[in-house]
Amino acid sequence: MIVILKPDPNQDQLKSLLSWLQEKGITIHTSVGEARTILGLVGDTSQLDADLIAALDIVEDVKRIHEPYKNANRMFHPEDTVVKVGNTRIGGGSLTLMAGPCSVESEEQVVTIAKAVKASGATMLRGGAFKPRTSPYAFQGLGAIGLEYLKTAREETGLPIITEMMDISQLPLFKDVDVIQIGARNMQNFDLLKAVGRQEKPVLLKRGMSATYEEWLMSAEYIMAGGNHNVILCERGIRTFETYTRNTLDLSAVPVLRKLTHLPIIIDPSHAGGKSWLVDSLSMGAVAAGCDGLEIEVHNDPAKALCDGPQCLRPDAFHRLAGKLLTLHETVKNLEA
Amino acid sequence: MIVILKPDPNQDQLKSLLSWLQEKGITIHTSVGEARTILGLVGDTSQLDADLIAALDIVEDVKRIHEPYKNANRMFHPEDTVVKVGNTRIGGGSLTLMAGPCSVESEEQVVTIAKAVKASGATMLRGGAFKPRTSPYAFQGLGAIGLEYLKTAREETGLPIITEMMDISQLPLFKDVDVIQIGARNMQNFDLLKAVGRQEKPVLLKRGMSATYEEWLMSAEYIMAGGNHNVILCERGIRTFETYTRNTLDLSAVPVLRKLTHLPIIIDPSHAGGKSWLVDSLSMGAVAAGCDGLEIEVHNDPAKALCDGPQCLRPDAFHRLAGKLLTLHETVKNLEA
Amino acid sequence: MIVILKPDPNQDQLKSLLSWLQEKGITIHTSVGEARTILGLVGDTSQLDADLIAALDIVEDVKRIHEPYKNANRMFHPEDTVVKVGNTRIGGGSLTLMAGPCSVESEEQVVTIAKAVKASGATMLRGGAFKPRTSPYAFQGLGAIGLEYLKTAREETGLPIITEMMDISQLPLFKDVDVIQIGARNMQNFDLLKAVGRQEKPVLLKRGMSATYEEWLMSAEYIMAGGNHNVILCERGIRTFETYTRNTLDLSAVPVLRKLTHLPIIIDPSHAGGKSWLVDSLSMGAVAAGCDGLEIEVHNDPAKALCDGPQCLRPDAFHRLAGKLLTLHETVKNLEA
Amino acid sequence: MIVILKPDPNQDQLKSLLSWLQEKGITIHTSVGEARTILGLVGDTSQLDADLIAALDIVEDVKRIHEPYKNANRMFHPEDTVVKVGNTRIGGGSLTLMAGPCSVESEEQVVTIAKAVKASGATMLRGGAFKPRTSPYAFQGLGAIGLEYLKTAREETGLPIITEMMDISQLPLFKDVDVIQIGARNMQNFDLLKAVGRQEKPVLLKRGMSATYEEWLMSAEYIMAGGNHNVILCERGIRTFETYTRNTLDLSAVPVLRKLTHLPIIIDPSHAGGKSWLVDSLSMGAVAAGCDGLEIEVHNDPAKALCDGPQCLRPDAFHRLAGKLLTLHETVKNLEA
Repeated sequence: MIVILKPDPNQDQLKSLLSWLQEKGITIHTSVGEARTILGLVGDTSQLDADLIAALDIVEDVKRIHEPYKNANRMFHPEDTVVKVGNTRIGGGSLTLMAGPCSVESEEQVVTIAKAVKASGATMLRGGAFKPRTSPYAFQGLGAIGLEYLKTAREETGLPIITEMMDISQLPLFKDVDVIQIGARNMQNFDLLKAVGRQEKPVLLKRGMSATYEEWLMSAEYIMAGGNHNVILCERGIRTFETYTRNTLDLSAVPVLRKLTHLPIIIDPSHAGGKSWLVDSLSMGAVAAGCDGLEIEVHNDPAKALCDGPQCLRPDAFHRLAGKLLTLHETVKNLEA
Repeated sequence: MIVILKPDPNQDQLKSLLSWLQEKGITIHTSVGEARTILGLVGDTSQLDADLIAALDIVEDVKRIHEPYKNANRMFHPEDTVVKVGNTRIGGGSLTLMAGPCSVESEEQVVTIAKAVKASGATMLRGGAFKPRTSPYAFQGLGAIGLEYLKTAREETGLPIITEMMDISQLPLFKDVDVIQIGARNMQNFDLLKAVGRQEKPVLLKRGMSATYEEWLMSAEYIMAGGNHNVILCERGIRTFETYTRNTLDLSAVPVLRKLTHLPIIIDPSHAGGKSWLVDSLSMGAVAAGCDGLEIEVHNDPAKALCDGPQCLRPDAFHRLAGKLLTLHETVKNLEA
Repeated sequence: MIVILKPDPNQDQLKSLLSWLQEKGITIHTSVGEARTILGLVGDTSQLDADLIAALDIVEDVKRIHEPYKNANRMFHPEDTVVKVGNTRIGGGSLTLMAGPCSVESEEQVVTIAKAVKASGATMLRGGAFKPRTSPYAFQGLGAIGLEYLKTAREETGLPIITEMMDISQLPLFKDVDVIQIGARNMQNFDLLKAVGRQEKPVLLKRGMSATYEEWLMSAEYIMAGGNHNVILCERGIRTFETYTRNTLDLSAVPVLRKLTHLPIIIDPSHAGGKSWLVDSLSMGAVAAGCDGLEIEVHNDPAKALCDGPQCLRPDAFHRLAGKLLTLHETVKNLEA
Repeated sequence: MIVILKPDPNQDQLKSLLSWLQEKGITIHTSVGEARTILGLVGDTSQLDADLIAALDIVEDVKRIHEPYKNANRMFHPEDTVVKVGNTRIGGGSLTLMAGPCSVESEEQVVTIAKAVKASGATMLRGGAFKPRTSPYAFQGLGAIGLEYLKTAREETGLPIITEMMDISQLPLFKDVDVIQIGARNMQNFDLLKAVGRQEKPVLLKRGMSATYEEWLMSAEYIMAGGNHNVILCERGIRTFETYTRNTLDLSAVPVLRKLTHLPIIIDPSHAGGKSWLVDSLSMGAVAAGCDGLEIEVHNDPAKALCDGPQCLRPDAFHRLAGKLLTLHETVKNLEA
């Protein structure tokens, strides 16, 4: 961390700053220039709050040299993290297809879809039992019984299951789930992050609607700081001025995260666009850009249309898409080799 | 709600839609135009998911006539809600000044500040005991002991206290707090909203960093649907492309919310701007625009500068500001009378 | 267009609205429902200002059924537009690679780069002669002499040239340019749009930094309304809260524009990300998502590094990338066939 | 400017950087720390492109100490600029009320409104003759004849006139206008900025819809670099994710610009909110926050409602508002004294 002092800083305040830093075990290299004095801070600067230092009267600006996250930082962990879930490996060159309904509606529904998406090449079943809904009057999900249906679908297909946890109190119910999903709205629910960091199950952490890459990685760091290093990152679109699409898929997240972190990167094209006819193009783009997998909503019952979200694919559409994605992934791997 | 059908809709799907709506107790008025058929839905449409209907193959667009929130809606509750906290009344023409430190650091600190801000005209003490911090390595607040210090400050000054709750599990600790604050990052932590909706204490609900007015009011609706109608809304800046300020204070929230809802509207100029030198101008603007109160960070110890957040005022600066705000509020009230 | 009236509208104002609409040749279908009256407007509604009508006291809301653009609308022009520039065809299934330096610096520079990118597979040479720079003190481009160097490079390689026009007064200088580029900052410089609409050369219209799809297509409509239908759209990143990347590439623009318009869609990964190491991944993603081409910055002189923008590729890096993109494009075409 | 080098920089590239800087007259202070070498650049660094330097292989980061604008910078011009227009003085503690119709429609209309707003306390007449419209099919303004009507209104009332110029070619027509307005869409039309910088008339420069404070001040710098220092800044709302209001008024612009620049700051509450019922509250807030004036749309003919934009006030509403604003301004001045 580099601290640029204002010209002629108050000496008492400067002493106070220096001794405070030294108490924290930071070594200070002072460079006295003609116009400015610059402090180079060496040591564990991830514990320092750059904003607080920048707010001091004597400080012109603060410049971090290292990112404030450690466990998630590729600098300290150069190899890709590969998260293992049953026979599925997420990251490290594979392409993981997570597919399934937005909401679990019935045992029959989820088993049918699970079989269909498995046959198409999906390696994980997604489905919501606890649903974060904007309105208190909207269907809030089947809850615990929905988790049971997912487990039945896992038994019938062998697909590991991933589903969203919304509150710490649900943790015991998730004991038999394969991957815990933390939704965009809870990306900075820090108590929830700490709770899933204290257990061992892999966690898929969605990006908050207006979270920067750094904030997102700091939330991953919350989980990892608790001891759980099985974190998967999932970009699902950010909020921008454009409202034609529900959110704006930030494809740059793929190369940026690849550089900043060793954690696997999943793209959710269904929520990003919010329209089923966008899923095809966005999925193709995400795979070619180098993501580790996709999380795609698939629904089976075109007749029961009202439970079919705007962003859901039908199984036949998913089947065609999955075929294209697997071929595309092979082509891209060969091109990059 | 108005549903605009596509030309020549599939008749089976139309029948399925109509019967589904009728099951839900909705009356349907069909207007057959030359080019389009339009359905006017009458009844409790707040239970209908407009996005789902819009996603149907036969539907061109859906237009809500009424907002999807009921309890928070001024249409159904024309008079201003006034939230009573001890002797303080929030809303209804008064100006509430909530002031205090960002973090509770010690009993002495919080008592000293409480006395100072009370002498300046503050009517409520704010202070953080559980702190939502971006980094897991940053100070997370004093927790339960911080709540005790706040209560001591209340005893010494008579000021009611407001402090942030981050997780349902903290609810028992907040039994003796006067107002529960829900932070921006938890605005869509729906389980937390339900929990504070099932108890009686007033709740100050901060706007999420990228939440629309409607989403914010739907979160208020979550609390109110549980039976707790003592909800206070607090605008604290939204996330935009401009990074010179930490967030962008959305002043329009004052007149917009005044129209849409009967709930009191507080402005937090400290977090909105993120710089102490912005607080004065933004506070003046907010009061003249018609808000019901302000939540301002005040810190007392200029020597111990490193605990002094960039957006904190010193007590003397707050004293000058509070004096100006109270005079301004009188002037504005007389002008609007 | 559908106009939803408020309950019990003032009858004089309603008459005034109806007669004003009839004067404009609009036919009105009135549907009187129980709670609301709805007007269905049939005719050339693209001339009506929906915001103005929505502002009337008697109007609850206005809902457009058709987009306000006509010439650019795929509904009225179902086949893809293919823009022909010399031997190059933009759109209609081909992949156009436009490459070259950000700024034209010298004849030697631009000729060298032109030869290199042609050898790698580029089909058009891009290069800036008139440069929109944020600072008045920064290099503003070589101007007319830069255009001459571009023409020399065209003579030596046969590559058609595309370069930015910033003001109407430059039009005569562009007589011998192949494609006129309108930059993001001038996307709503309506006089400039009209001027390039009155001439015949193809125009590449970049998306404004915070322009919606509709505003962007309305700007294309300005050009087309003047008679010039050779418009190419270029997505170059939008402004969001994320500042790690210079802009946020909006990949959804590819499928969305494909649905809304028949015009070709180019992606500029260099400006979108603002970092050369992002170009590879974003380009791959854009091609797989189905764009018609890419505009990529390439610079040749690693020694003269200070003229080398942060987002420029070296010719060898472009060579590798172009090879991958052409293979990828073939694969994607086969998959979609 | 401070340049932070990467560890172990390539020595040839470092030499090349140092000699390039020295050629530009920059003095370099090198501070060799344990981990990093830091270069302090002293001299006219406003000519250096920080992004280009930051892009060099050997550079970790670049930190500007001074803002890149000079003429607009309060650091080099501590006193407030007061722009004189006839008897009106903009800035320096006065409150300027610019009012008038969005579009000039007829001589009678603009004269009537001019008289009304003058009687209410307005000191300048605004009105659009050349209108930037999103659609090519919408009314584009009366053009030159509209300017004549404005001049007539000036003769009848003595109010100076401000109106928008959209293209350099219109400059001769604006010879007799008092203040030239540059609209948000042209904030980075650099040729237009240069043109109005080469003449003497005051220029009101609106903020671009997604322009940062720095970009906005750099556009002011374009005008001032040409010799015209009579620049007035006008905040008119920025584009954010919130679409309930047309734009989001950024009130922080008032205190931020007050610190960064000496130029007067006007607020346009009509365009910011896009709804007439927001104008009152936003105007009050802007004056209390310390702006130098307001630009407000006023229309006179409630019968001819269709030409009456959604954000326009009627003269009687403006009359009441102006009275409140002038009283408020006095109160605020006394409080700040």
